[in-house]
Amino acid sequence: MADYRVPRADMQFLLNDVFNVGADWQQMPALADMMDMDTATAIIDEAAKLAETLVAPNSRAADEQGVTFKDGVVTTPAGYKENYQQLAEGGWVGVTANPDFGGMGLPKSLSVHYEEMLCAADIAFSLYPGLTSGAIMTLDLHGSDELKNTYLPKLASGEWTGTMCLTESHAGTDLGIIRSKAEPDSDGSFHIHGTKIFITGGEHDLVDNIVHLVLAKLPDAPAGSKGISLFLVPKFLVNEDGSLGERNAVSCGSIEHKMGIHASATCVLNFDGAKGWLIGDPHRGLPAMFTMMNYERLGVGIQGLGGAARSYQNALEYAQDRIQGRGAKATQNHKKEADSLMVHGDVRRMLLTMKAFVEGGRAFSTYVGQQLDRAKFGDNVEQSQRADALVALLTPVAKAFLTDTGLEATILGQQVFGGHGYVREWGQEQLVRDVRIAQIYEGTNGIQALDLLGRKVVGSQGSNLTPLLEDIRAFCNDSDTTGWKVEVAALLKHTDRLEGATRELIEKARGDENLVNSVAVEYLHLVGYICFAYMWLRMALVAAPQVGEKPHLRSKIKTAKFYFERILPRVEGLLPAIQNGSKALFEHEEDEF
Amino acid sequence: MADYRVPRADMQFLLNDVFNVGADWQQMPALADMMDMDTATAIIDEAAKLAETLVAPNSRAADEQGVTFKDGVVTTPAGYKENYQQLAEGGWVGVTANPDFGGMGLPKSLSVHYEEMLCAADIAFSLYPGLTSGAIMTLDLHGSDELKNTYLPKLASGEWTGTMCLTESHAGTDLGIIRSKAEPDSDGSFHIHGTKIFITGGEHDLVDNIVHLVLAKLPDAPAGSKGISLFLVPKFLVNEDGSLGERNAVSCGSIEHKMGIHASATCVLNFDGAKGWLIGDPHRGLPAMFTMMNYERLGVGIQGLGGAARSYQNALEYAQDRIQGRGAKATQNHKKEADSLMVHGDVRRMLLTMKAFVEGGRAFSTYVGQQLDRAKFGDNVEQSQRADALVALLTPVAKAFLTDTGLEATILGQQVFGGHGYVREWGQEQLVRDVRIAQIYEGTNGIQALDLLGRKVVGSQGSNLTPLLEDIRAFCNDSDTTGWKVEVAALLKHTDRLEGATRELIEKARGDENLVNSVAVEYLHLVGYICFAYMWLRMALVAAPQVGEKPHLRSKIKTAKFYFERILPRVEGLLPAIQNGSKALFEHEEDEF
Repeated sequence: MADYRVPRADMQFLLNDVFNVGADWQQMPALADMMDMDTATAIIDEAAKLAETLVAPNSRAADEQGVTFKDGVVTTPAGYKENYQQLAEGGWVGVTANPDFGGMGLPKSLSVHYEEMLCAADIAFSLYPGLTSGAIMTLDLHGSDELKNTYLPKLASGEWTGTMCLTESHAGTDLGIIRSKAEPDSDGSFHIHGTKIFITGGEHDLVDNIVHLVLAKLPDAPAGSKGISLFLVPKFLVNEDGSLGERNAVSCGSIEHKMGIHASATCVLNFDGAKGWLIGDPHRGLPAMFTMMNYERLGVGIQGLGGAARSYQNALEYAQDRIQGRGAKATQNHKKEADSLMVHGDVRRMLLTMKAFVEGGRAFSTYVGQQLDRAKFGDNVEQSQRADALVALLTPVAKAFLTDTGLEATILGQQVFGGHGYVREWGQEQLVRDVRIAQIYEGTNGIQALDLLGRKVVGSQGSNLTPLLEDIRAFCNDSDTTGWKVEVAALLKHTDRLEGATRELIEKARGDENLVNSVAVEYLHLVGYICFAYMWLRMALVAAPQVGEKPHLRSKIKTAKFYFERILPRVEGLLPAIQNGSKALFEHEEDEF
Repeated sequence: MADYRVPRADMQFLLNDVFNVGADWQQMPALADMMDMDTATAIIDEAAKLAETLVAPNSRAADEQGVTFKDGVVTTPAGYKENYQQLAEGGWVGVTANPDFGGMGLPKSLSVHYEEMLCAADIAFSLYPGLTSGAIMTLDLHGSDELKNTYLPKLASGEWTGTMCLTESHAGTDLGIIRSKAEPDSDGSFHIHGTKIFITGGEHDLVDNIVHLVLAKLPDAPAGSKGISLFLVPKFLVNEDGSLGERNAVSCGSIEHKMGIHASATCVLNFDGAKGWLIGDPHRGLPAMFTMMNYERLGVGIQGLGGAARSYQNALEYAQDRIQGRGAKATQNHKKEADSLMVHGDVRRMLLTMKAFVEGGRAFSTYVGQQLDRAKFGDNVEQSQRADALVALLTPVAKAFLTDTGLEATILGQQVFGGHGYVREWGQEQLVRDVRIAQIYEGTNGIQALDLLGRKVVGSQGSNLTPLLEDIRAFCNDSDTTGWKVEVAALLKHTDRLEGATRELIEKARGDENLVNSVAVEYLHLVGYICFAYMWLRMALVAAPQVGEKPHLRSKIKTAKFYFERILPRVEGLLPAIQNGSKALFEHEEDEF
């Protein structure tokens, strides 16, 4: 596989020029003294070094070796433990964690770039710190002081890792029917009984202790999703002085053999009366866990983005080096027996589609990160609430659209390689296998679409969509759009059509309970393509006046044109499918499938 | 993985009711005495038994075990040799081979269904007889009587297998730059020198001898693709009495480790002065090889179809069994803690998309098979020529569109399984990995699109497209379309738009050499979606009058509606992308990527 190079210039361009996050940070009490663009640049450079020299070079070997399981012990691939410890020592596990417990407390608009680097370097590896970050956030927001003091410093320092234990073999999407039980003990703790499956990082050899966040039902729990509580269950119990005590009654029964992320341990965990402590209120575990889920969902979207970014880099390098055939217009390189793949229109189409998805996706993750920061750190209540609404709307889009375009980009990258993309040697097929899971876990992309259209949009009678529509229209109307009239008109037209389609759906959904789930995926894609168009226009309008001789800025302008000419037309196919509604889906009887 | 069940009823429906191939066969001298629908039914039943009970049950274990390579020897997974020999003994390797040499001589309209079964059962396994079929056809059409008499009976009986040796490490799509050489020997044979890569079935333990068809250059060869000759190179030389002689100087250097088709041996073959014989005329190897390539291309398309068909069956069974969540409209099954996945609109969307692709694709492969039969066996010159033109036009569509929709269908099937689709246990992820190669080999799908738009359509100034347009219009105008006015109007509208877009492309291509390769993939998809719409309308109009109580026919009508409402709108996104042409692809300088 080609060496991974962090796209520093693009990240700087987004942070500085497009989103000017530095100005935001200066307005935020928690960040004003700590963060400025120089600090951000230093952080990006340091993180890039880790991703490029430590994590990425080990990715393919780790995939080949995979995780092994023997007698309850899970062994990660060679190099993983050392790399994880270097990451931890640099403070990179607790990048977004609360500084009160030793975290870096970085803004999300910055940390999304660190996350992208880690995913581009090695998605499987990125999951160990990724899940830990989610656990930190949940515990920080919902845990008692005692739990926080005992566990957060060790998690934020990377000395211990975290998991989220939700799924059971019969209960994945539908958590309301989980069977794991929590029996109260006289000392205020609980005994957890049950079996969880698909637990990422459920058991491994990277660190000394693993802190499981586990969903289970109390004896008096109401039925369904309103009867689920959240517990903290450590692999090793922790003594009063912070040292590790005896092994808790949680064990790894087996690991899954999967299509990809071979180096990530996906475990069956058996809780045989394991000692645990309640996090938050009884029966309120699902909302607490959703803190983590929402955080993870943007992170999972970034897995798609990272995989796509790596795919693009690899495929570009291959296309430039590989000579095959001649240009349709004229021979380009008379000295060689063939021209490079770059002369072929279809190869350029594949490369530019990837580029449009990667850079559009990177901008989108920065945009969502900026809204998360405003919601979390802002001191202007109205702006924070508005940002919070945008985050709620855009989180399912980020998760699903970044992974759907991520899969398309890794498949396109593989296609550029031809047969060489199908053999393992080049590492390109690994990206497809590794990205594929991101469309499935943390709520399948179908569930994300249902969350977007059902809960967020129809559930709010469309009002949650308003801030996005306003943002796009304000940008189009308030910017100097000289030279971009066609694109601005297209974006405004599609924004109007999105609004119209939404209004129609809200109306029709009143009389058709099946409507939302029948068109949700197409609706999410419609929103996704429009958001990416908005991102591309933002980038283009910033690049245009300062374009001069900088290839990176010239490229922005040309790729924006490409996006509007070749990718955005896809919405034309989505709109009629959405308008056709649920009917064609519910006519088939069971025996007619 | 769920047991594989051959969709016999659908195959019968297509052969009998939709395409009435029996009437065709009665008009064809070579088939009239041999083939009727009873015979066809018996053949389908017999083949189904093999696919269901012999091949399919071994597929997952074979994938896990894979092919091994040691000291030049390639070992296939357990059961492969026995299964291959049973196949050979039943005459199933030579299904379409010339009866003069022991083949069954089956019409293609029938054998496509046998091929689909084999691919649905195990794509990797299907490649061994598949490549042999292609080799048989090439040798039969281009070989000398001596070569044919020596090799064809053994190939048609399945005692030996065949390969096609084209690719070299620096030359895949661009065969004009291959370096393999052929030196003439005084006895009329040649010594072949060179290294070939990606050779499917290049070495294995299934049979005693392997017959390689090899592209190489004669000493006086003109440069480029007009200087390539085709040679037959057996693994073991054949004595005059037909027994095996000494080992030829061809050996397997290594095998590839791949994303999928793990049980198919993909070999590096070293030719170190191996003895070979010229097939056909000197320097005319590429056209001769294209006989095989074209035959294989439909076959590769059917790999996509077979994988999709299996994916649909598995996912449907899973969706019916798995209970998760409740229906949006009302609880369906009060006795259980959740309803089956079938209540959810998005699951139904995924299942019906698969179903529409699978049954549309099956109809399309039958349609192309029928044209191949008319071209090969017909005694009406005009009809044969027309069929030949349709085959030329539709072969790249069949290869690329059946594999592109095949990948989409396997990915959707995996998505229905959720996390269980990502673990290897259920066999669903194997389908994705196995189908993926079919978009790459035998000419990447980008090359197929270039063949379609460049060579076939623009190359003929559009006249090669005419028979398809005529077929669709005649069908729409001559059929009783009561109840299908909307769909007929949509199909005719899109057919007009295809014709218009084609005229525009031919015009613009005169001044823009890069145009064809810039929009070819979208153009191929446009043709593909329209062809599938045509297939769905043909099926619907046959099913409608006889629908009664038969679920299979009711399903046809409902799935046709689904296709027109939810899938066909995709053409709305393709047309503007095509109209936007090449410009956005050729603006980027190398340093702007």
